Amino acid sequence: MQKITSLAKRRGFIFPGSEIYGGLANSFDFGPLGTELKNNIKAEWWRRFVKTRGDMVGLDAALLMNPKTWEASGHLGAGFADPLVECKQCHERFREDTLKKKNVCPRCGTKDSFTDTKQFNLMLKTFLGPAEEDAATVYFRPETAQGIFVNFKNVLDTSRKRVPFGIAQIGKAFRNEITPGNFIFRMREFEQMEIEYFVRESEWEGHFERWLNEMKLWIKDLGISEDKVHYVEIDAKDRAHYSRRTIDIEYDFPFGQKELYGLAYRADHDLKAHQEASGHDLSFTDPETGNKFIPHVVEPTFGVERTVLVAMLEAYHEEEAPTSEKGETESRVVMKFPRWLAPVKVAILPLMKKEELTTMAKELYSDLAQAFTCDYDETGSVGKRYRRQDEIGTPYCVTIDYDSLKDQAVTVRDRDAMTQERVGITELEQYLKENLN
Amino acid sequence: MQKITSLAKRRGFIFPGSEIYGGLANSFDFGPLGTELKNNIKAEWWRRFVKTRGDMVGLDAALLMNPKTWEASGHLGAGFADPLVECKQCHERFREDTLKKKNVCPRCGTKDSFTDTKQFNLMLKTFLGPAEEDAATVYFRPETAQGIFVNFKNVLDTSRKRVPFGIAQIGKAFRNEITPGNFIFRMREFEQMEIEYFVRESEWEGHFERWLNEMKLWIKDLGISEDKVHYVEIDAKDRAHYSRRTIDIEYDFPFGQKELYGLAYRADHDLKAHQEASGHDLSFTDPETGNKFIPHVVEPTFGVERTVLVAMLEAYHEEEAPTSEKGETESRVVMKFPRWLAPVKVAILPLMKKEELTTMAKELYSDLAQAFTCDYDETGSVGKRYRRQDEIGTPYCVTIDYDSLKDQAVTVRDRDAMTQERVGITELEQYLKENLN
Repeated sequence: MQKITSLAKRRGFIFPGSEIYGGLANSFDFGPLGTELKNNIKAEWWRRFVKTRGDMVGLDAALLMNPKTWEASGHLGAGFADPLVECKQCHERFREDTLKKKNVCPRCGTKDSFTDTKQFNLMLKTFLGPAEEDAATVYFRPETAQGIFVNFKNVLDTSRKRVPFGIAQIGKAFRNEITPGNFIFRMREFEQMEIEYFVRESEWEGHFERWLNEMKLWIKDLGISEDKVHYVEIDAKDRAHYSRRTIDIEYDFPFGQKELYGLAYRADHDLKAHQEASGHDLSFTDPETGNKFIPHVVEPTFGVERTVLVAMLEAYHEEEAPTSEKGETESRVVMKFPRWLAPVKVAILPLMKKEELTTMAKELYSDLAQAFTCDYDETGSVGKRYRRQDEIGTPYCVTIDYDSLKDQAVTVRDRDAMTQERVGITELEQYLKENLN
Repeated sequence: MQKITSLAKRRGFIFPGSEIYGGLANSFDFGPLGTELKNNIKAEWWRRFVKTRGDMVGLDAALLMNPKTWEASGHLGAGFADPLVECKQCHERFREDTLKKKNVCPRCGTKDSFTDTKQFNLMLKTFLGPAEEDAATVYFRPETAQGIFVNFKNVLDTSRKRVPFGIAQIGKAFRNEITPGNFIFRMREFEQMEIEYFVRESEWEGHFERWLNEMKLWIKDLGISEDKVHYVEIDAKDRAHYSRRTIDIEYDFPFGQKELYGLAYRADHDLKAHQEASGHDLSFTDPETGNKFIPHVVEPTFGVERTVLVAMLEAYHEEEAPTSEKGETESRVVMKFPRWLAPVKVAILPLMKKEELTTMAKELYSDLAQAFTCDYDETGSVGKRYRRQDEIGTPYCVTIDYDSLKDQAVTVRDRDAMTQERVGITELEQYLKENLN
């Protein structure tokens, strides 16, 4: 874990938030490479689950919603609060349910020093409108899901979709966690990719299985080792009362087996609650049979930052690599991202910093950058530049040497196999396209 | 304007936020088509200004930043506040600088009824950490720019870029406007696409001109009429004191000539302020000359929602279209989006709802949806379905008829020219690709 956070900062994947001001709790900013990596994840998720499917549409709701939303969803109630206790001696605060010993402060060791448990709501509040004292108190959404439910009727009326169909959303959510931590695993500001898939009650089990399978395929395509992923069936007593099946998809993080994604059958709980609270009819009328019903929901949820973290953990490798000296090796750090995920696809490296080579290399960069995210690097030995690109997971390095000026060909080096191939410049784009897809 | 807001809601571009609960101030949710339209804008902006340029990198900073950021940037001061007055009679609040008559309440007509002017800060505040009374008060960013400045050194150290270079960011920002309004033009929650381009002081004028030109090209590619765009040079007395040139790019909205984008020369004001406040060295050392200096900044700013609004306003056309009856016409509403911008690229329409046709059409949909955002529609007459697709701006409608079963060809209809062409199914994807690019 230490290696990942250090590489993340050193190479511009992820920086501590507001670092020059000493940071801000457990917040993080995504640097140039982290932004590309995150964008690749979100774009592929959207392509796969929205753009290419006739039964899915997208949505992008505001982060601030009418507070009645949170009354209806129960987020303003006791269910969305952490039990908070404070040590009367040292004044440190703890989540009561995570304390190993219930009567000894883990910080100062005082016995029986805790205050009574206080329910601490996890939503971030703010005030809209002039003058705080009588402005409207509103909350930043603690999940993207409710934006989908509240817009269900609008989407139904405008998209002509019929049950079964789903609405997907990618966006930020906020939770005032008492104890955020573990790098980007648990933050107060985070991003979700959520789907609410609307089905007939009689068909929920089949859809649940199909979405479980879709999630498994997605996890596979992220390059995640199967043996580190655990599909944990949640017991009836630990499930929400309306759910008849929930699976936590957990991963062996360096800090323990923790939730990565979730899949829940939510019955008609949410739409029903919003129908009651709003007085709007949120049912669906089957145009074939005339049957009118409130759809049931299967909900696959994906955390964006957790996906980034797992992708980085899985990609990280340390290994021996041959040097230019015959028989010699040196150790390298290489991020073996699946090609589609790599933040930079191709690096263009002139063998030496000589004008005839850099001119040709820069032209090649300009051309290739229209098709792939490219990097250009002319500083240091080629071996050193290979190491730099390995460390950020660039699948292909293209080297321009003196022969290139004569034969109009370049050396293409593969990140994983470390093999090199001579490719003509006219065929290069096609060669890279085929190998990157 | 009324026509645009009505079409936006009717066809699933933009819904009033939290509508079933009576909305929330001037907030809006993007429906299926609005989300695609907005995503197309953001993706093309990122491709054009980040991915294809060697002198630009991306960033994605947290929305919540350390409050010292806003002390240093001046956002916590009087400069980022609206002058607020209240009518003592009817208790309505107004922005004092927008009142036409300074001493008569425009709501209830009472004379000399205003309270003293109060400076009302525009940042949205919230509380991080358990228990509000002693939790940290933090603010949601009122602009994306400061996230870039605060990360300047981190990006410089990790990306090996040299001045001149730029950092780009797309993301949400929040301002507690006293009077939001005009649909998605002015909202309390909005999205920005911003670039901070770091230059040598001696070269700022050339870079300013180059960015002005880039913005003009972008505006052209959005399909915006040149005569509706105004490049307003801001007078010295109205500019920030450190700026030697600022241009407001304004557009003739139906509600008046208002700001669309901005381009400002900010000198070294921001980096200097953060260097002073943080104690961190935010200068750049030229590796060629050894010169050390704080870079100056040229800042192009683009509003995402304003871009969506202008794109919709410009695309909207009402015109007469021929019907299937010879010589007859009917009026149509057509959104003439530039092809790259259209939320749906291709609609697949089986001529009739007969199984042999719908089977073929659905297969075609599955294939084409891998390459383009597609729609499938089998309800109503073909003429009616053309009108539906016109109204959302779909460039191509592909109709499958009984001849298609024999000759394996389909009819492709062009949105703007309304011409129809017979294209073989094996050539269809290539045909569409060429015409859509």
